[in-house]
Amino acid sequence: MSIWFTEKHTPHSGITMEVREGLYHHQSPYQTIDVLDTHEFGRVLLLDGLVMLTERDEFVYHEMLAHVPLISHPDPGRVLVIGGGDGGTVREVLKHSGVERITLVEIDEMVVRAALEYFPEISSGLKDPRVDIIYGDGVDFVRSVSGGRYDAVLVDSTDPVGPAEALFSEEFFTGCHRSLSKGGVFASQTESPFYHSAFMAQVFTRLDKVFPQARFYFAPVTTYPSGNWSFILGRKEPDVKPRLNRAGDLDTRYYNDQIHVSSFALPRFLAEMLRER
Amino acid sequence: MSIWFTEKHTPHSGITMEVREGLYHHQSPYQTIDVLDTHEFGRVLLLDGLVMLTERDEFVYHEMLAHVPLISHPDPGRVLVIGGGDGGTVREVLKHSGVERITLVEIDEMVVRAALEYFPEISSGLKDPRVDIIYGDGVDFVRSVSGGRYDAVLVDSTDPVGPAEALFSEEFFTGCHRSLSKGGVFASQTESPFYHSAFMAQVFTRLDKVFPQARFYFAPVTTYPSGNWSFILGRKEPDVKPRLNRAGDLDTRYYNDQIHVSSFALPRFLAEMLRER
Repeated sequence: MSIWFTEKHTPHSGITMEVREGLYHHQSPYQTIDVLDTHEFGRVLLLDGLVMLTERDEFVYHEMLAHVPLISHPDPGRVLVIGGGDGGTVREVLKHSGVERITLVEIDEMVVRAALEYFPEISSGLKDPRVDIIYGDGVDFVRSVSGGRYDAVLVDSTDPVGPAEALFSEEFFTGCHRSLSKGGVFASQTESPFYHSAFMAQVFTRLDKVFPQARFYFAPVTTYPSGNWSFILGRKEPDVKPRLNRAGDLDTRYYNDQIHVSSFALPRFLAEMLRER
Repeated sequence: MSIWFTEKHTPHSGITMEVREGLYHHQSPYQTIDVLDTHEFGRVLLLDGLVMLTERDEFVYHEMLAHVPLISHPDPGRVLVIGGGDGGTVREVLKHSGVERITLVEIDEMVVRAALEYFPEISSGLKDPRVDIIYGDGVDFVRSVSGGRYDAVLVDSTDPVGPAEALFSEEFFTGCHRSLSKGGVFASQTESPFYHSAFMAQVFTRLDKVFPQARFYFAPVTTYPSGNWSFILGRKEPDVKPRLNRAGDLDTRYYNDQIHVSSFALPRFLAEMLRER
């Protein structure tokens, strides 16, 4: 018998992978959480039936969400991560020796529990003494946090439907900007350039109103829709040069100096779409 | 009733797409040729059941296979295309106004016929008076062609199993190098960096023996395995600067100056694999 899990990336297309075993299934107050063991991608975390990470390719996504903004900051000490209860982003942030404090705001405690049990290597950083976990809504948290508190805000969210929609609003971006210290950096995942370019243009318009500089960057993530993923970087002080001389010190598998610089290249169709907004 | 076509990218994973209609099915002396009409990707060309192109995303692959090498050459006039019977690469080469002659060597006449009938926009360049089509084996052709005849050789091949395997051999690369004029450029598709990095390292070793400079470059192709694809560029005179000032003249959807430069960034795991060869 062979069992296959298929995620539809659009109503008419998707990715399919053979499942060795279903390891975990739970309905939390917020979403359905599943952990599958697959032949090709190792263990896979699903939220509401959508792939959040796989053991095989999560390094690309988490390295890019963390290191591109943090290397763009002169010396990040306090970092806020919104979402990201699996701990992958926190693991990467902890590779920056100057980081003193990470606050993770995750709405769903069950995601953290499942990650600690089924993805021990990805989630190991969640137990680091520099990490505070707050179970709550990221939008509420940013609304009420004191100004200038963080050097970096990283939004490691699910797709912009349902609860995560508010994490792409102008109000939320304004709150993040306010919560950042001088020189602060913001980054968020922004979906697939192939399938969601109209959404990306909306997000760009909102972030560009709030930050003096907003720029997309890109990375290949095999198990995400289209296999290519976008992120957006917002900077309070765009004139500060990235510390690319330090990128080589990081223990990474995908990210390096060349990738940092190159990841900002805009395909022509996206450059034109953003110009024509 | 809903019909889905699934291509396995590995024994345990793949891409799946809903099919509106099967338009063409033919067993040629070399391979099975199918054309499907799909909801998400438009018409799709399959050879031996593997996606060669879709109307929706073929522009990325064909632009990158043609423009990266041609913009790296000072003034390409004569271009040899091996494979590529669908005409997509030829269409892109024809966008370079200095090109006087394109020789397409395709082993399977039925691919050209199917492309002319089912993909008229992609294959339109095949009817251009500057294009000569030769039905034959690319390896034999390169073995017997006179030296210094072409300014660029572009290898638009299927996967390196069966007949296409020889298109990744050192003997073939040596023949391509010999067929190139002073300053000549070579490019070939080289599979997925996620699934086929060991194959890429083999190809690099072979091409690097033959050309003074061999470099990988990358592009996102949604319907190819992993959604990220690799190419290799070989140059006879690596000191010549790419004509990036001319890239903007080309009528493209993906390629531009930024993409040209950035596409060469090597992920850390690949850079290390190539160093450790």
